[in-house]
Amino acid sequence: MVLKIISSTVKTVYRVTCFKLKDDEKFRLIPGIFIALGVSYSTVAAKSLAVNNFMADTVTDLKTLESRPEDMKTKMELMIMNIQAEFCRSLEKEETITKFHVDRWIRPEGGGGVTCVLQEGEVFEKAGVNVSVVHGNLPPRAIDQMRARGKNFQGGQVLPFFAAGVSAVIHPRNPYVPTIHFNYRYFEVTLPDNTVEWWFGGGTDLTPYYLNEDDAVHFHSSLKKACDQHDKTYYPKFKRWCDEYFNIPHRGERRGVGGIFFDDLDTPSTFDFVKSCAQAVIPSYIPLVQKHKNDSYGQEEREWQLLRRGRYVEFNLIYDRGTKFGLYTPGARYESILMSLPLSANWKYMHNPDSNSREGKLTEVLRNPKDWIKID
Amino acid sequence: MVLKIISSTVKTVYRVTCFKLKDDEKFRLIPGIFIALGVSYSTVAAKSLAVNNFMADTVTDLKTLESRPEDMKTKMELMIMNIQAEFCRSLEKEETITKFHVDRWIRPEGGGGVTCVLQEGEVFEKAGVNVSVVHGNLPPRAIDQMRARGKNFQGGQVLPFFAAGVSAVIHPRNPYVPTIHFNYRYFEVTLPDNTVEWWFGGGTDLTPYYLNEDDAVHFHSSLKKACDQHDKTYYPKFKRWCDEYFNIPHRGERRGVGGIFFDDLDTPSTFDFVKSCAQAVIPSYIPLVQKHKNDSYGQEEREWQLLRRGRYVEFNLIYDRGTKFGLYTPGARYESILMSLPLSANWKYMHNPDSNSREGKLTEVLRNPKDWIKID
Repeated sequence: MVLKIISSTVKTVYRVTCFKLKDDEKFRLIPGIFIALGVSYSTVAAKSLAVNNFMADTVTDLKTLESRPEDMKTKMELMIMNIQAEFCRSLEKEETITKFHVDRWIRPEGGGGVTCVLQEGEVFEKAGVNVSVVHGNLPPRAIDQMRARGKNFQGGQVLPFFAAGVSAVIHPRNPYVPTIHFNYRYFEVTLPDNTVEWWFGGGTDLTPYYLNEDDAVHFHSSLKKACDQHDKTYYPKFKRWCDEYFNIPHRGERRGVGGIFFDDLDTPSTFDFVKSCAQAVIPSYIPLVQKHKNDSYGQEEREWQLLRRGRYVEFNLIYDRGTKFGLYTPGARYESILMSLPLSANWKYMHNPDSNSREGKLTEVLRNPKDWIKID
Repeated sequence: MVLKIISSTVKTVYRVTCFKLKDDEKFRLIPGIFIALGVSYSTVAAKSLAVNNFMADTVTDLKTLESRPEDMKTKMELMIMNIQAEFCRSLEKEETITKFHVDRWIRPEGGGGVTCVLQEGEVFEKAGVNVSVVHGNLPPRAIDQMRARGKNFQGGQVLPFFAAGVSAVIHPRNPYVPTIHFNYRYFEVTLPDNTVEWWFGGGTDLTPYYLNEDDAVHFHSSLKKACDQHDKTYYPKFKRWCDEYFNIPHRGERRGVGGIFFDDLDTPSTFDFVKSCAQAVIPSYIPLVQKHKNDSYGQEEREWQLLRRGRYVEFNLIYDRGTKFGLYTPGARYESILMSLPLSANWKYMHNPDSNSREGKLTEVLRNPKDWIKID
């Protein structure tokens, strides 16, 4: 309780004090503020983890995070809470009539999360940005969904696990603004012989309703830039993986124009790579929102957007491993898993746009994924 | 080609001649008509199978059907084609602005179907009534979905199969008219030792948007009556099975107020029971359409209907074995499988109606299924 009050006071002071200072300057200021408030050094250290601008308190208590600053569980939780806050605030800047609603929730079986949803805005029809930091025991059905290729789990057993991830789906109102999805996650699973397997997975992908090649090129270039900082082979490999993953086999269509997708990554520098990818979300997407949010459109475009959203629902509910993993995890918060679903979606029997129409041109690209940028 | 022309001529003559005659009288008249036309006896026999009022030609050619009139494959195909036609015509009588669109399709791997969809009507927003008669080899993933409890299949192998079924989902426009779903199916699977396993499955269930107890009682009574003709233990057993099956575990809600559901039924009289159930669909449902199709409603009721339709989509795409069986069957016609999805569905984050509201009262019944009629 005391810690909560201190934290809340500190947050207010911090916000006022740090107004308009750059990120680096913020952290240099903190010790001084805390000393002035007579707050213990341990709280100062917690603050130095940059929790103040988060959408809510961290899932793991600050003391635990402070006690293991170099533990990947700590680094990942702080990174994803930070990305969540930065992305939500970027979206709020583009929106006019509403803000994110924030729910911090506890999972009785272990861990919890912070779910931020903005609904029925002028620019965003539905935007969900979720952080989960959960641990406990995983049933075989959920393990099947989280099992990365090459991981050697035996089926049929319950295994202790830790999972931390950020996940977002943004459904804008204007059919000329594409939908974006991203998800970055870190897993630890303790095998029966007590060894711990860990790995990262994630990706960012774009789902336009009308094809704008410049947008696709801008989006892919931003992701390639993030990948190239770490490994020149990543972008081409993960671009292709994305095309394979976001596939709706019964329709023979991809969900959108792709992006990157990877799983099972466990090199010593993977965290830095994942951080770069997560940081690339805003520059890859927000310019597209700004560019198109005031484009004019009519009923025809709206109807096509709703039909495409039906496909989005099909992918998420039938094929997406993340959704299945969520729904099969005991005590999972389904509202946070299903926040990815659009506010509205339509299904019409036998709706096949003419191949020369703008709708048909998008469909062609969904059927035959393109390379949007030249690969060196 | 010759057969087709004869069939078409016969159909016209037949329809004119039999106008306003009762079913039994129709068949007694047929030979006379055909002899007058000089049509061979074999065609007469085909006609006597009552194919003339079907929505399209049978999937299996008439000669094959005629050659094995007592084969369950024949009996089932004719029964479901007949139910499809009767149900579609009953619905068309309630509709004012549009008719069913009929697609007869061939599955390259074996068999085919007849899909009837009425879309964007005044009374029915989307109504789909599908017949499938398919055969071929089934991959293990699809077998997993079709596997009835107690059937002893070994996983991981491809098995020859035959499946014939009728399946319908009716989404009315007025939120006071419930959605109905029914599906009656017959399976044959040839095991590696060449023995043939066969069984029936099916059910009829009701999904209201607002609870009307009289409607639920009427619906369940109609089903009970059909069951009781065959076995007094069927209704209570299959009513409970229905509550179990149409369950959305992540929400802790049933899809609707239930009905009957069964699988794995293989007694000598099961076909007659299935036929009674299928024939009970019209009297169980059409009176509810007539009663409520002109009820007045506003935006609030419409929005609640769309949210409930979101739950319908969740059940169908995440849990329904029929949908999965369809999507995992090679060469399946996805348009026929997904015709069950509503024209429109909505998802709102954390929409929880007040427990005293009419929406809350429906939700309470979905969480705790009731016995609608007294069981002897």
